[in-house]
Amino acid sequence: MARLVTRLTQRLGIEHPVLSAPMALAAGGALAAAVTRAGGLGLIGGGYGDGPWLETQFGQAGNTRIGCGFITWSMAKQPHLLTQALAHRPAAMMLSFGDPAPFAAEIAAADVPLICQCQSLDHVRQALDAGAAIIVAQGGEAGGHGHRRATLPFVPEVADLLARQSPDTLLLAAGGIADGRGLAASLMLGADGVLVGTRFWASREALVHEGHHAAALAATGDGTLRTSLPDIARRLDWPKPFDIRVAANAFTARWAGRDDELRSDIEREAPAYREAFMAGDAQNAAAIVGEAVGLVTDVPPAGEIVTRMVEEAAILLGETARGFLA
Amino acid sequence: MARLVTRLTQRLGIEHPVLSAPMALAAGGALAAAVTRAGGLGLIGGGYGDGPWLETQFGQAGNTRIGCGFITWSMAKQPHLLTQALAHRPAAMMLSFGDPAPFAAEIAAADVPLICQCQSLDHVRQALDAGAAIIVAQGGEAGGHGHRRATLPFVPEVADLLARQSPDTLLLAAGGIADGRGLAASLMLGADGVLVGTRFWASREALVHEGHHAAALAATGDGTLRTSLPDIARRLDWPKPFDIRVAANAFTARWAGRDDELRSDIEREAPAYREAFMAGDAQNAAAIVGEAVGLVTDVPPAGEIVTRMVEEAAILLGETARGFLA
Repeated sequence: MARLVTRLTQRLGIEHPVLSAPMALAAGGALAAAVTRAGGLGLIGGGYGDGPWLETQFGQAGNTRIGCGFITWSMAKQPHLLTQALAHRPAAMMLSFGDPAPFAAEIAAADVPLICQCQSLDHVRQALDAGAAIIVAQGGEAGGHGHRRATLPFVPEVADLLARQSPDTLLLAAGGIADGRGLAASLMLGADGVLVGTRFWASREALVHEGHHAAALAATGDGTLRTSLPDIARRLDWPKPFDIRVAANAFTARWAGRDDELRSDIEREAPAYREAFMAGDAQNAAAIVGEAVGLVTDVPPAGEIVTRMVEEAAILLGETARGFLA
Repeated sequence: MARLVTRLTQRLGIEHPVLSAPMALAAGGALAAAVTRAGGLGLIGGGYGDGPWLETQFGQAGNTRIGCGFITWSMAKQPHLLTQALAHRPAAMMLSFGDPAPFAAEIAAADVPLICQCQSLDHVRQALDAGAAIIVAQGGEAGGHGHRRATLPFVPEVADLLARQSPDTLLLAAGGIADGRGLAASLMLGADGVLVGTRFWASREALVHEGHHAAALAATGDGTLRTSLPDIARRLDWPKPFDIRVAANAFTARWAGRDDELRSDIEREAPAYREAFMAGDAQNAAAIVGEAVGLVTDVPPAGEIVTRMVEEAAILLGETARGFLA
């Protein structure tokens, strides 16, 4: 088995520079543990916050070392969830979508590395002020919530900022990475590793309905879009500027450009959306995937995904790279 | 001097897998020739079509081997410009933004390799049908015209499509690439080389006003956006779905969300925009740059840009890559 050694693997004491994203609802303890067992680090998705669910998922991970991530603006409404998660002594705590400052001291006091996911240079500065150990530079091609920068130019621009202001802070690339090509490219861009969502969303351990998995296997990267419609339908009050990337479907086509009408009809539409989601009806509740869905052609065990990514990246960084050097 | 050998360098007979984009108005003969002399291949930007300008620019390139590119939907209105350009026996002819099919036979008859720039998988299929020798997979982070896919996941998805359907067709990555990191990453993603715009736009040979160069040096990648406003102000009737990425400025702020009002005021606004552009007033006529502008900190000779990119990429693909392999 190949290994890739970076500052990330050394700092976190892991074998491979691959973290699974803490995807709300989809990333439970089984997925996180499988990624860690394969040599990466898996993160439970604390998401919008559900204490009993969180306990169940930490329980499913058993004694396997995993991390956890929260949607900051949502967790801020029930900060006891952060305390609850830290009590499990996670390998890392990731905060996304909101100011991490109010929570940094508690995380530092627990001696847990803080990972901050950032969508702009201002977010990066905010994360550095909060003492983040690891910055995730997330491009808008990512599935789920995010904003508009693109991974390929955003990662080196963040790397330059860190080199100037905080050279010991590590950097992960996120958005559009689903295989060894994306992993190898990210390392060339200056990242110390990658945070991967969509590819692990399409794994056996992910808490995703098979109907949504089937829709993802049929989708191309061209067939995704950033929108606020699924958040409106789920009555999630997401702050600007964030929206969500999903696979286009009958729902996004029906309501395109009609956000306000969906809000007006929400008493009828919210239960319908929820029912469709629970039933795995991917036409009426969107599969939450990024552009990298076009690189996903199967739903294997998560550990196999880690292995494939690392093996492919090792070949690219080894013999393929050598072949380009005359 | 380092060299990078790929299928592209072998096929085109060049030293480095770096092409300069045929940027309308900005990419003249001096820029194209400088890129070629440094070991890449430079392309003149035929743009919206101006026969005398095109002659002047081919003349400025002298005997240096260069290519040429057109905006397809615009060139289609004066197809004699294609004939005129082919008479100069360019090293390659690039078509972007429109169906290449009507022009493929004439280009093939001239024994000139056809490069098609693509923004979706459907564009790639269209380009293959037209017999393209080289596909450019352009992400929406690119400056100037384009669409919404992101380079990092789009390039490998196109590479997979080519591997299945047309393995001898070469692939270039475009959008967000401004240094050796972007070049090395693109090769890891499966590209045979890169097409670079913004970085060469900010070169001494580019036909760009120093006022616009100054604005670009001050901009970050966060400070660019895709919009139709500059096209409206220039009375350019761009077809859907294309828009243009520029540096945000007073003009884009003033008219944000008011495309129709700008159209109503066009008799007054078009001359004002043109005057601001000619004067290098970057607040009232937008600098046409991509997200990679955040990686640009100087305006060197174009040949030096080629050399820097290749030297940096060679180190990354050599000792840096080896360092990751345990």
